[in-house]
Amino acid sequence: MGRVGNAPVRVGVLGCGNVGAALVELITRDADVIASRTGVRLEVGRVAVRNVAKERAVQLPEGTLTHDAEAVVSDPGIEVVVEVIGGIEPARMLILQALKAGKPVVTANKELLANVGGELFEAAAAAGLDLLYEASVAGGIPLIRPLRESLAGERIRRVMGIVNGTTNYILTRMSEEGASYTEALAEAQSLGYAERDPTADVEGFDAGAKAAILATIAFGRHVVAGDVYREGIAGVTAVDIAFASRLGYVVKLLAVAELVDDRVAVRVHPAMIPSTHPLAAVRDSFNAVFIEGEAVGELMLYGRGAGGMPTASAVLGDLIDAAHNLRAGGAGRSVALSRARVCPIDELSSQYYLSIEVLDQPGVLAAIGTVFADHGVSIRSMEQVGMGEEAQLIFITHTARERDVQTSLHELRHLDVVERVGTVLRVIGPE
Amino acid sequence: MGRVGNAPVRVGVLGCGNVGAALVELITRDADVIASRTGVRLEVGRVAVRNVAKERAVQLPEGTLTHDAEAVVSDPGIEVVVEVIGGIEPARMLILQALKAGKPVVTANKELLANVGGELFEAAAAAGLDLLYEASVAGGIPLIRPLRESLAGERIRRVMGIVNGTTNYILTRMSEEGASYTEALAEAQSLGYAERDPTADVEGFDAGAKAAILATIAFGRHVVAGDVYREGIAGVTAVDIAFASRLGYVVKLLAVAELVDDRVAVRVHPAMIPSTHPLAAVRDSFNAVFIEGEAVGELMLYGRGAGGMPTASAVLGDLIDAAHNLRAGGAGRSVALSRARVCPIDELSSQYYLSIEVLDQPGVLAAIGTVFADHGVSIRSMEQVGMGEEAQLIFITHTARERDVQTSLHELRHLDVVERVGTVLRVIGPE
Repeated sequence: MGRVGNAPVRVGVLGCGNVGAALVELITRDADVIASRTGVRLEVGRVAVRNVAKERAVQLPEGTLTHDAEAVVSDPGIEVVVEVIGGIEPARMLILQALKAGKPVVTANKELLANVGGELFEAAAAAGLDLLYEASVAGGIPLIRPLRESLAGERIRRVMGIVNGTTNYILTRMSEEGASYTEALAEAQSLGYAERDPTADVEGFDAGAKAAILATIAFGRHVVAGDVYREGIAGVTAVDIAFASRLGYVVKLLAVAELVDDRVAVRVHPAMIPSTHPLAAVRDSFNAVFIEGEAVGELMLYGRGAGGMPTASAVLGDLIDAAHNLRAGGAGRSVALSRARVCPIDELSSQYYLSIEVLDQPGVLAAIGTVFADHGVSIRSMEQVGMGEEAQLIFITHTARERDVQTSLHELRHLDVVERVGTVLRVIGPE
Repeated sequence: MGRVGNAPVRVGVLGCGNVGAALVELITRDADVIASRTGVRLEVGRVAVRNVAKERAVQLPEGTLTHDAEAVVSDPGIEVVVEVIGGIEPARMLILQALKAGKPVVTANKELLANVGGELFEAAAAAGLDLLYEASVAGGIPLIRPLRESLAGERIRRVMGIVNGTTNYILTRMSEEGASYTEALAEAQSLGYAERDPTADVEGFDAGAKAAILATIAFGRHVVAGDVYREGIAGVTAVDIAFASRLGYVVKLLAVAELVDDRVAVRVHPAMIPSTHPLAAVRDSFNAVFIEGEAVGELMLYGRGAGGMPTASAVLGDLIDAAHNLRAGGAGRSVALSRARVCPIDELSSQYYLSIEVLDQPGVLAAIGTVFADHGVSIRSMEQVGMGEEAQLIFITHTARERDVQTSLHELRHLDVVERVGTVLRVIGPE
């Protein structure tokens, strides 16, 4: 980047948790290096925090910290605003105020973007200002900028991501150590990878918000969290994972966004992917997003999806970009998006892994087979795992429609010989 | 991106081989989609080709094709120039003329950048114009933009890449099918992955040029192809690969650039990497670059490193960026770079895999062990492979200095009991 003026760009930071504190540390420590490398000098102007009195690792000049976030946004000395508070309000209101005051905004807030992003993109586009959010999906991984800029001319077909580190850690432990879901979750909690209430992670809410943002960027149409079909990993068993492994697959919680005709299909669910697929090698709490484009072919972007420093690194990249545009006088690249037409999961097709707990007696397979046949679901393989009270049948289907599979499962639940319909995994990859 | 004017940006394309033809096809086909998505309308203005009469897949208006590349660059109706001729001259001269005429340039030319990039970056910076080159390294993988923009504030420690698809294909076949180097090379040639004269690929020249560009971007200092230490894969045997596999490693041709104090060390050589490392899962002709940064941690960017369409996709992303900046009036981000101080490989340290063909007789190990000991090279494991005339000893060292290992190997070549010093592989990863 060329030099674009010597006066520092004063940054207002809203929130000083893990990410905010790491960002302030990076800016304070590396301002000289950044200036010499990029021509942009950053300076932490003011930082809005919940508790001004709290002890902090970074030393800031007297008066930098304030309890009043609105005062930071409206401070005429602040030129760019970074929002790392999280949640919808007051983040939404503060960002709108900043844009109204002519200040570009950098945010790491996935919940906000996945729910009310449309309003924010529109406000940024109307103001001709940058609203950048690289850190909102997959932490430190450069993802939004490559999708939006490097692939600006690309026809993207599908985006598949491992975008939740907690569930990937749990599934990795189950896969590599044969741990049960409960054991692996407890281990993740003891290491601080999972919250005491793990719902947002294990039920796929976190991944769902990220899927909405990814779909929005990939397809240029606004997708919200409510558009995302969602299943979590709590039902996945050690038996499922061992069985998948025997067939040459690993089980991952995937966020998948794809174009179906002119509609966008977005979902989060556990899936079986071939062990030779690049996503299969994404272990522990790492994240990765696999992109399929018409011209570019297959891409994967891999890295740390969370953590104060990796996320702050992504915020910093955006901040330098926004500051550069501010000084160089380039127009912001925000654009208002129309709402996506969503393709419901019912209409999609896939191969399926289905585990069904049954009575261990003759005739069971015939009864179940009849139900599948009635709905046009063709079975590729069946195997009994366990005996007596533990008996379950594991089916792999040929490619079938979701609606037909769900109707079949609904009927199976009413068969006398079926104790319970267990895990349903969609199988990614060629039949 | 916001709308930045309706007049199309007229593009001059120099060269119409695989990449040029794919680019012209993408622009011609997708101009509307690109305009609606990015606000930038592209139009192929003129295309310089070697043979105007040649039959081409894309239909262009009469008079678009010309034999005269200089006429394209100097045409007042051409606003942006794409250089996909390859080689140093006349590409260098044409790019300098374009910049002088006030036209931003997009190039896919690794040879040019790795040899005379300094001059070109300087010219672009002086003119305040974009000189973009995403496609010059690793084809369709977004790499330069993430490094330069997303990681603008990041302290990068090391970049390691699989940046040559031909050699990765050969090593994958050797690894997965136990093929010999000669067999795998022949297979690559029959599939069109390798040239009839494979020197540029298998001896690491292609990877070396890319390593120089990667190092330049990662560390913000100009590194040229001549700075890169280089070894190819022709000496790697099926025995080496099988042995590595038994120890939990795979063999890859790596381009490595790292910061050593304030110097840049850049090298291309075959290396053993742990099979759990994300680069180990990069198979066939795919490319990937693994980046280690202080704040962001570990990143990997993976995809198609070559091919007309993937490379054209990267050129197109740059072209949209340059066109946007042109219309929006933002300053170019080119910056003149000072020459890097290079750290010679002699000063680096690594673990080593060494295969040494020996006479199968008592006392050999003592003689060899003495040489290593004399130079402070500590041996972690030794194993004899083969008997009689086929006997070789395979050593894995503890971390040792390159200079000490090379001095040892030099002396070993003069021992009566040593027939030949075979493969030398550096081992990546913690001891």
